[in-house]
Amino acid sequence: MKNYAKTNIGNESRTELHEKLSLTGAEVSINQLPTGASVPFVHSHKNNEEIYGIISGKGKALIDDEEIELTTGDWLKVTPAAKRRFFAADDSEITYICIQVKENSLGSFTADDAVMH
Amino acid sequence: MKNYAKTNIGNESRTELHEKLSLTGAEVSINQLPTGASVPFVHSHKNNEEIYGIISGKGKALIDDEEIELTTGDWLKVTPAAKRRFFAADDSEITYICIQVKENSLGSFTADDAVMH
Repeated sequence: MKNYAKTNIGNESRTELHEKLSLTGAEVSINQLPTGASVPFVHSHKNNEEIYGIISGKGKALIDDEEIELTTGDWLKVTPAAKRRFFAADDSEITYICIQVKENSLGSFTADDAVMH
Repeated sequence: MKNYAKTNIGNESRTELHEKLSLTGAEVSINQLPTGASVPFVHSHKNNEEIYGIISGKGKALIDDEEIELTTGDWLKVTPAAKRRFFAADDSEITYICIQVKENSLGSFTADDAVMH
């Protein structure tokens, strides 16, 4: 197995990295909703935690019917069973990363998993 | 457990989200290196895959002594054992996300893990 893989996301409305980078511990997608647009469905997950990061623009999330304002620099962790839906603002696009990982799958990390050279 | 957690990363040189968001499947950090700066050490991991996304600026990575140019929109998967070090360009800062997940921890995802409502 090669020690790294690289891609560029370009300007698609949605890019999924799992296949492109042969990810084994996460799916990562980069998503753009134009001004006034929204994801046209509500979903939850069976096993996976999702982590959303707002890269540019603003909008809102509905999480189990609670409305959460989102702006550039906001990061959101959503538990698997929560019902979620995402919206761009009426006056702004929103570009966000979605990281999907298996809940409780991380063991040691950072200093406890690193080897210094 | 609450169904979501939210934070804003502000303008720190490094923000780690694991504690702030009570993440259970990943550590996520947002990192900024000023023009000409670099991470002052080489590291690898015992168990964790890392996924890097360049949010703004440009620079390079050294992965096992191979030089990889990085610019906004690039995404990079690095296997645990690879030795890595990151640099901002001589004429640009670089801001990047680092996602740390346990290698081979993801089971089903997206359509196979989602529940539609």
